[in-house]
Amino acid sequence: MLEKRDALIDTTEHDSLQTADAKHLLHPWADLSTLGDENALMIQHAKGVHVYDSKGKQYLDAIGGMWCVTLGYGHEELIEAMASQARKMAYYTPFGDVSSAPSAQLAEMLAVLTPGDLNRAHFTTCGSTAIDSAVRIAHYYYAAQGRDSKRHVLSRRNAYHGSTYLAASLSGKAADRTLFQYESEFVHHLSSPQYDPDIAKESAASRLQTLLDEMEAEIARLGADNIACFVAEPILASGGVLVPPQGYQAATREICRKHDILYISDEVVTGFGRLGHFFASEAHFDIVPDMIISAKGITSGYQPLGVVMISDRICDAISAGAPEEKPVFSNGYTYSGHPIVCATAIKNIEIMKRDGICQHVREVGPYFIEQLRTLIDSDIVYTVRGDHLMACVECWTGDEVGPTAKNMALAQRVDQYCEQDGLLVRPYENLCIMSPPLIVERSDIDRIIATLGSALTRAQNDLRAGLLH
Amino acid sequence: MLEKRDALIDTTEHDSLQTADAKHLLHPWADLSTLGDENALMIQHAKGVHVYDSKGKQYLDAIGGMWCVTLGYGHEELIEAMASQARKMAYYTPFGDVSSAPSAQLAEMLAVLTPGDLNRAHFTTCGSTAIDSAVRIAHYYYAAQGRDSKRHVLSRRNAYHGSTYLAASLSGKAADRTLFQYESEFVHHLSSPQYDPDIAKESAASRLQTLLDEMEAEIARLGADNIACFVAEPILASGGVLVPPQGYQAATREICRKHDILYISDEVVTGFGRLGHFFASEAHFDIVPDMIISAKGITSGYQPLGVVMISDRICDAISAGAPEEKPVFSNGYTYSGHPIVCATAIKNIEIMKRDGICQHVREVGPYFIEQLRTLIDSDIVYTVRGDHLMACVECWTGDEVGPTAKNMALAQRVDQYCEQDGLLVRPYENLCIMSPPLIVERSDIDRIIATLGSALTRAQNDLRAGLLH
Repeated sequence: MLEKRDALIDTTEHDSLQTADAKHLLHPWADLSTLGDENALMIQHAKGVHVYDSKGKQYLDAIGGMWCVTLGYGHEELIEAMASQARKMAYYTPFGDVSSAPSAQLAEMLAVLTPGDLNRAHFTTCGSTAIDSAVRIAHYYYAAQGRDSKRHVLSRRNAYHGSTYLAASLSGKAADRTLFQYESEFVHHLSSPQYDPDIAKESAASRLQTLLDEMEAEIARLGADNIACFVAEPILASGGVLVPPQGYQAATREICRKHDILYISDEVVTGFGRLGHFFASEAHFDIVPDMIISAKGITSGYQPLGVVMISDRICDAISAGAPEEKPVFSNGYTYSGHPIVCATAIKNIEIMKRDGICQHVREVGPYFIEQLRTLIDSDIVYTVRGDHLMACVECWTGDEVGPTAKNMALAQRVDQYCEQDGLLVRPYENLCIMSPPLIVERSDIDRIIATLGSALTRAQNDLRAGLLH
Repeated sequence: MLEKRDALIDTTEHDSLQTADAKHLLHPWADLSTLGDENALMIQHAKGVHVYDSKGKQYLDAIGGMWCVTLGYGHEELIEAMASQARKMAYYTPFGDVSSAPSAQLAEMLAVLTPGDLNRAHFTTCGSTAIDSAVRIAHYYYAAQGRDSKRHVLSRRNAYHGSTYLAASLSGKAADRTLFQYESEFVHHLSSPQYDPDIAKESAASRLQTLLDEMEAEIARLGADNIACFVAEPILASGGVLVPPQGYQAATREICRKHDILYISDEVVTGFGRLGHFFASEAHFDIVPDMIISAKGITSGYQPLGVVMISDRICDAISAGAPEEKPVFSNGYTYSGHPIVCATAIKNIEIMKRDGICQHVREVGPYFIEQLRTLIDSDIVYTVRGDHLMACVECWTGDEVGPTAKNMALAQRVDQYCEQDGLLVRPYENLCIMSPPLIVERSDIDRIIATLGSALTRAQNDLRAGLLH
């Protein structure tokens, strides 16, 4: 199953790279208790759906880089688009009335791909800056109408929206709340809306009603006149692939409309094909948000890009309401609409269309979920959930449910066995999260299931033998 | 002076690009009063120190993209580094204990280039996310020591730190405060510290003392026990190339040390050669900050990258003080340490070293300032200021000083004449800001001065003829 690629990888680099990493990098979500002593897994080479570490070991990448490498690795057309734009025009300021062909063309393509009247793109550098900007735009929108009391923001527990001060505050994962500071004056969290029919003790309709009642109550408590927007991933991705009950997105969208609260759909993960559509909001969940944010799959992860797609209604209002003496939209980034980045995104969209990637996901996605669900028979699998190419397996020792120390140790063991056998899944609490490249074939899916199944069996044996601690 | 490059540029694209831009883009710092009706300047091609618009017109780029294109355009080695890494390994998650060669190697190179014990890199996606993360790290640092009251942040008026909710709140430019919301509970602004010896009514020593007294007073008012950090550009760049009085950086650094307040140096503009050194903090201003943030020139603008360089003292404290049950450093980005981006930055540093770019800036920088200062004789030039390759010309009609409507119209006219004559400067209020690529030669500088001089004369004639409104 493993394959050495010595011709491509200089394995002698391994030690010095690990040392440089341990001494000089502070990783996102680093374990601070081992800072300086890490033996990082160095990913050195990648092609198609496979990545290779600094010792030449091959892995099937079941997490698509991190939700993002949709077209797979080493895609020559993406690389050529990047290099070609770099040769033509690597960068120029996007501020004010200066522009570039790739940013204008990409904006036009996105206007076509997004639903409703979401026709204008504000480019940023990542998902965090996109959600941060989207909330700021909501603030501007109401202030431009003289309604600056509308500034509170509704989010949900278990949501993940990124890592700026504001984006981290919008996020609602308890595990991510550490010693940093968080905005809590205008950011509020509703309940996590997941509903898992396999394990639920109530009907989907009842669960949905509870969630909607809570939302209405929170709006009543804060006052609709004080609320700017609701931010929501259609499926809560990093929170643990949490799927709300059927109809939740449409019903919350309707509540927002009723109370004149902007609905911001965070499609950083669900966008660009992962659920079988360029954007899932309308095609999959039957809603037209006021803003959609995107990142990750928009460039297949090859380049850093975020974008806020904004409705004409919002743009009309902010331009009509801008103060005459200061009509400047003072938000944006040096790298907004970066030509090389946008050229890569354009090529990514062209390839996705030409190769029918969304159609492919609509075909293999259900197969992936169906096959994954066969693992539910394992004693250490509490549940399996997901939609198309985003899914997770939730582990438990048979006692308490959730991210307990024992369940987390068990899931970690599963991850380790997967890694040993050449499969990378994303360990998170007591979950094994998967989001493979969109180009996965049925044979890749079969290998994922087989490897994961074997890892589950071995971890279960360890548990029985008392070898887990 | 102008040169057509029809072979390279399809000018028939011009109209459709401008339309796509007007209909579908919301630019950073867009003029909302003309949203939808813009005729954007489309930059289509670029080589060396020149850029070309969609009609084929050539411009000498006196703003280096926007402070960032240090090695000039179309640099084949940078492009090759980018493409080569993309072929090898385009992306993999940087989260937790997974890493890549370019990110580890770049972190090691930056540890050598930064002063003191700033040996650890936390990568972000741009300057905004870098400063946002730096402040968050300061919060974590004190909270890890059980001192979470230390969370207030000192900044300065006229500072520019970026565009996230927090970064925009740290910024202190009055013109940029529009209808957005700003954090004001823990962010505080000291006076803008510029001192311009040409026009000052007091001595540098007296001005410095006033600034330091104010800083001490603000610290006393808030209580040092409540303050986490001071964020400062060594020279306030986008605020208008504002140079503090001699000794300001060292004296404020000392005040911070005395009160146990972290000093965060924002070198997004001053770093990577613009003042003749990789980092200006120690080499130019004789300070060793607790953190330095960088972006822009770090990749010569070819790729989006930000970084926080952190002292060992901070890293030791946050790892020692992390809670045992939750030791995760929950900050960072999907694109943190992006392999393609980091490979570009590595090549950028290698080229800068090999080609002696910093040495070159130390040679041509003083010539640039000296030549620019000859323009002070113009009646419509209030002052000229700057340091090495960052500078500005401040315009006035002879009446009131500062960004009045008349002065801004005048500066805009100067910019227009420059653009007509094939020179791009950065119009900002009543300033013409310049930050040419670091590879400018004396002949380029001569052309900048000649074109700008001619534009000033023509604008002055318009003013006299009553043609300005």
